[in-house]
Amino acid sequence: MSSISGEKIKISVFGESHGKAVGVVIDGLPPGIEIDSDKIRAEMERRRPGQDRFTTPRNESDDVEIISGVFNGYTTGTPLCGIIGNTDVKSKDYDAMKNLMRPGHADYTGYIRYGGFADYRGGGHFSGRLTAPIVFAGAIAYQYLQKKGITIGTHILKIGSIDDEPLNAADIPADILNKFRGMRFPVVSPGIEEKIKEEIDNARRDLDSVGGILETAVVNVPAGLGSPMFNSVESKLSAFVFSIPAVKGIEFGSGFGFAQMRGSEANDQFTADGKTVKTATNHTGGINGGMTNGMPIVFRTVFRPTPSIGKPQRALDISKMESTELKIQGRHDPCIAVRAVPVLDAAAALVFMDLLL
Amino acid sequence: MSSISGEKIKISVFGESHGKAVGVVIDGLPPGIEIDSDKIRAEMERRRPGQDRFTTPRNESDDVEIISGVFNGYTTGTPLCGIIGNTDVKSKDYDAMKNLMRPGHADYTGYIRYGGFADYRGGGHFSGRLTAPIVFAGAIAYQYLQKKGITIGTHILKIGSIDDEPLNAADIPADILNKFRGMRFPVVSPGIEEKIKEEIDNARRDLDSVGGILETAVVNVPAGLGSPMFNSVESKLSAFVFSIPAVKGIEFGSGFGFAQMRGSEANDQFTADGKTVKTATNHTGGINGGMTNGMPIVFRTVFRPTPSIGKPQRALDISKMESTELKIQGRHDPCIAVRAVPVLDAAAALVFMDLLL
Amino acid sequence: MSSISGEKIKISVFGESHGKAVGVVIDGLPPGIEIDSDKIRAEMERRRPGQDRFTTPRNESDDVEIISGVFNGYTTGTPLCGIIGNTDVKSKDYDAMKNLMRPGHADYTGYIRYGGFADYRGGGHFSGRLTAPIVFAGAIAYQYLQKKGITIGTHILKIGSIDDEPLNAADIPADILNKFRGMRFPVVSPGIEEKIKEEIDNARRDLDSVGGILETAVVNVPAGLGSPMFNSVESKLSAFVFSIPAVKGIEFGSGFGFAQMRGSEANDQFTADGKTVKTATNHTGGINGGMTNGMPIVFRTVFRPTPSIGKPQRALDISKMESTELKIQGRHDPCIAVRAVPVLDAAAALVFMDLLL
Amino acid sequence: MSSISGEKIKISVFGESHGKAVGVVIDGLPPGIEIDSDKIRAEMERRRPGQDRFTTPRNESDDVEIISGVFNGYTTGTPLCGIIGNTDVKSKDYDAMKNLMRPGHADYTGYIRYGGFADYRGGGHFSGRLTAPIVFAGAIAYQYLQKKGITIGTHILKIGSIDDEPLNAADIPADILNKFRGMRFPVVSPGIEEKIKEEIDNARRDLDSVGGILETAVVNVPAGLGSPMFNSVESKLSAFVFSIPAVKGIEFGSGFGFAQMRGSEANDQFTADGKTVKTATNHTGGINGGMTNGMPIVFRTVFRPTPSIGKPQRALDISKMESTELKIQGRHDPCIAVRAVPVLDAAAALVFMDLLL
Repeated sequence: MSSISGEKIKISVFGESHGKAVGVVIDGLPPGIEIDSDKIRAEMERRRPGQDRFTTPRNESDDVEIISGVFNGYTTGTPLCGIIGNTDVKSKDYDAMKNLMRPGHADYTGYIRYGGFADYRGGGHFSGRLTAPIVFAGAIAYQYLQKKGITIGTHILKIGSIDDEPLNAADIPADILNKFRGMRFPVVSPGIEEKIKEEIDNARRDLDSVGGILETAVVNVPAGLGSPMFNSVESKLSAFVFSIPAVKGIEFGSGFGFAQMRGSEANDQFTADGKTVKTATNHTGGINGGMTNGMPIVFRTVFRPTPSIGKPQRALDISKMESTELKIQGRHDPCIAVRAVPVLDAAAALVFMDLLL
Repeated sequence: MSSISGEKIKISVFGESHGKAVGVVIDGLPPGIEIDSDKIRAEMERRRPGQDRFTTPRNESDDVEIISGVFNGYTTGTPLCGIIGNTDVKSKDYDAMKNLMRPGHADYTGYIRYGGFADYRGGGHFSGRLTAPIVFAGAIAYQYLQKKGITIGTHILKIGSIDDEPLNAADIPADILNKFRGMRFPVVSPGIEEKIKEEIDNARRDLDSVGGILETAVVNVPAGLGSPMFNSVESKLSAFVFSIPAVKGIEFGSGFGFAQMRGSEANDQFTADGKTVKTATNHTGGINGGMTNGMPIVFRTVFRPTPSIGKPQRALDISKMESTELKIQGRHDPCIAVRAVPVLDAAAALVFMDLLL
Repeated sequence: MSSISGEKIKISVFGESHGKAVGVVIDGLPPGIEIDSDKIRAEMERRRPGQDRFTTPRNESDDVEIISGVFNGYTTGTPLCGIIGNTDVKSKDYDAMKNLMRPGHADYTGYIRYGGFADYRGGGHFSGRLTAPIVFAGAIAYQYLQKKGITIGTHILKIGSIDDEPLNAADIPADILNKFRGMRFPVVSPGIEEKIKEEIDNARRDLDSVGGILETAVVNVPAGLGSPMFNSVESKLSAFVFSIPAVKGIEFGSGFGFAQMRGSEANDQFTADGKTVKTATNHTGGINGGMTNGMPIVFRTVFRPTPSIGKPQRALDISKMESTELKIQGRHDPCIAVRAVPVLDAAAALVFMDLLL
Repeated sequence: MSSISGEKIKISVFGESHGKAVGVVIDGLPPGIEIDSDKIRAEMERRRPGQDRFTTPRNESDDVEIISGVFNGYTTGTPLCGIIGNTDVKSKDYDAMKNLMRPGHADYTGYIRYGGFADYRGGGHFSGRLTAPIVFAGAIAYQYLQKKGITIGTHILKIGSIDDEPLNAADIPADILNKFRGMRFPVVSPGIEEKIKEEIDNARRDLDSVGGILETAVVNVPAGLGSPMFNSVESKLSAFVFSIPAVKGIEFGSGFGFAQMRGSEANDQFTADGKTVKTATNHTGGINGGMTNGMPIVFRTVFRPTPSIGKPQRALDISKMESTELKIQGRHDPCIAVRAVPVLDAAAALVFMDLLL
């Protein structure tokens, strides 16, 4: 199985980068979620390529055609299928590369896994384009979560050598997360946006790409979601997040920083604030023993630099088992992390909807 | 659902820290795996508490009683149930703490999630003791993998401020992994073991605990395992690893280090070595697009410091919604990361067996 | 979850009778299945409505648009999505019936289950039209099975008071099953077709409908497929078959006839035919202890009469909680069992493909 | 996977007929179900062998040891493991039969499926003894359902040539179902019990066995449970019921009788009874379009005659590929259907609990 996720909500993603369309079937949605097309369009717009020099020049409108599961503006509760056409496809770019196993790509692993039958054009089913249906599904999930008062947002924490300020996990106002959703380069520190753009521009000018870290928060989550062990909140979030192409690490709360900490420092003390239970600090990122404790959920995700770069590289010609020069002619993102901001919001929305149902 | 994992192999873990026993049902095992009891015992021994001052003084023999699924020394292919008795249980230690929500523990989240019905003694089902059946299941999976030539091993990369040398991901001999399995404090650098012990001893003497990072490698894995998207190797490994208590982050290959890298640097170039495809570097940790590429799988896992510490802390008495002093009297590990070494080996074995079937 | 089935192959069905389209995503297909469009079209044609007076006059071309998962004529191994447009839709027929809970239909249960948000037009997601994507998916599965030498076929065993001859379960040539696939009214006995048509015609003329029983066989299945208990072949087949609208019973081999039998009569004796193991009789329908024994799989499925009939009936107006006269104006099948023949073939193909993978 | 079932509640059954024990892990149980040990014992007693001449002389106490998941008399919400020891085991009876493929048994299919590694003693994991843990799990589920006012009961509808009266599906009082639970030979018609005993006794005296049909009802089920298509109530019930050894058919409501009916006759008319929606007749067995309609659920299950009979038969010696005489010396039930009454109650309880959660 490759492309089905979720326990109560199952999302089944399909499509190839240069096929007719990509899309998703969402099964298990509750009936009666009001579908706000403008909000869906806004989310799709956040991920859409071709908007400026920081993303791939491939220009897709990314309009979603809803085939089923919505009636008179509300979800029916039966499977919802949304389809996003591929319109700006230039497959000629890829034909010459059929046998070339590019570094950093899934060409070789997909070749072995699928016995040479996979659609190799533009990464096929392994392409970042498959995140478009995830953003669509997440937009619907988020409409459900917003009615419950939950807010989700993601900012750029690091691109190359440029660092933004981390969120204060113990106190994250919903406002700042909403603000992130309106920014093309969501950051906490004023002024850092220009430095990030410069960092990406430098990579682009060098015909290269650059990696990055995103920080995501989910606030106003009720306590007691998730389960110990295999359905821990961390297990569910990480399983989903690692399905996003280019993700290579995830950490919750103080994450890898815990290694240097003492228990007395790491332990978040529970206190009563009237009838509400809170913690003074939030090193644990809102999750104890795999279950939410009511504090903000905070996690950070690292994205490798886009493997497609303009710089000459060497690839393996699998038909000859010989190394050969590779000059990638396609259109690519100099920093995939930036484009992934709405994808992480969508992933978090889908996982928390699944947890809440 | 809390405690079932896997796609082809399902493992269903049960038990509480201070109940009769903990155990596991493994469903979907292939028939005909020869069960070597000595190897199982050796694995259990690696995780067993009560062995020295670096682990909890709770002393359990951790003998496994196999109830079903093994006949004449081989797996039958029908469900295998193994049970590990709890013998050294001192529940009096915990009675006074029924209403105390300890910092860093799953007391509060479990209280909300299970409506006050959970067994609170010694962490109940949320205890690290539940890793014993995972180690048992992993020992069986490893016997399967060894026949296929696969080797798995884990070393301590960091405890507090003490760092071991990372493995060279592009070239990991099976021998070093086997050596790790024989060491109580598996490390790469000679001499670092003593420093680690000292770091833990310092924490213990301060009635405190300390965190750490483990590095795990799996070598001789065939290419083409896993799937893009939701069943990526990273998704499956991370979902399992985050079910281990105290884990707060995971990274594959260069992991969080990718943030600072350029694509030209991060891309591992494929080359032909006779009929074998290899990569010169292994930043990606053996996984491209969610599928194995035949190079060593490398991942790092961070463990928070044990929340149970002897130092006085404050807890929330949920019955009075009041903060109160907490002096934990139970027996605990000053550094849970060290005990987790065989648990990570077991997790990796179970995930790779599932991928191979 | 409503519409996802399968263990290794997951099929996710979507769509509503009077929406834009119905369709299916098939996840887990092996790569390299050659797609023969003519065979798919032939299967769709067998189920297609509007062909004669024995089926609903709704006239759909039922062309399938493959969106993903096929490249250069072969399955890629990544999710295959096929969409079948709804073209001959007359929704005006249904608008007046929004609040009418028709007898025998899923109007009331769907109304409660989905809180009034379900698409009520033409049965919405609960319509027999949803079997079109199942037939499409089954056509692909059957191309896989045929390469392995497996043949599947279904005949009409009973419509109203007219009985066809049952197959001899111990000896079913592939030829007769292939012949069934070419017949619009597949039967064993010559001459029975006319009587069946007459029986259906009588019901149609009375503005009524009639039920029926179909008998399905699968031959040349290898022994040892399936599992004891919850993944028995009978469990998997029945779970799928009961997802077909109007099915109300299933029996394997001698089925309900076993009640009257003695063990000495019911036991199929195993014998060696050279190196092949056979049974002299096949009361068990090719399945012992939930696993295939290599003999023909035989099962019978009963279909209730189509609930939509022209005869005046009474329905419940749920908005007024009052009974009211109902005269159904839509276009319906006088005998749904006949149309279900290719659906059962498809169901069997999908289940056996799942078992073989 | 062989032995895991359920969507929200997963039950994982393990054990072999002549191993140490059989048992079950129930994962996903809600916390706070009060465990009434007497009720559990009473259910186990209903299934227990060795009680009279109508069941196998194997005498087991069938006491359940609860290992986990219950604390202070209530379910904790974490996995509940119950174990039932095998005490009256006479494996010598079976040793000679290692290579004998008995007619009607899973010997041959299990041999092929598990490559000769399965425990062949007394049917191993394929034995009817595995229904003991199902009855235990069902007893817990039933305590949950009873609090919700749901009643389940099963009676013998037919054994050999003796027929009991079917229930009137449109009107089944909870009382009659409760009465069934207290009877060793639950029947509707007075006087029929003696005839049934005689029928079984005749078979037993002939060293033979006999088949039968059971009719099960579930009353006071809320409307709107289940889903269309693959999670229909019929799909879920049938998948579970076909996991019970010896089941070869199931029908809902009028079942196979629908084949002879006209739509006008088969359609159950919805009417308002105050604020309650009812149907005048209940041909559909309480299920429309795969979802409950609030009327009694009624289904009938057929059991083949026990394959183990004392009469001389012929078996296949797989080591020599030769037919040989078989005289079964073990202890067996002359009519497995009678013993299955509490198993069907348990199956229904587990499925409806899963639907309600």
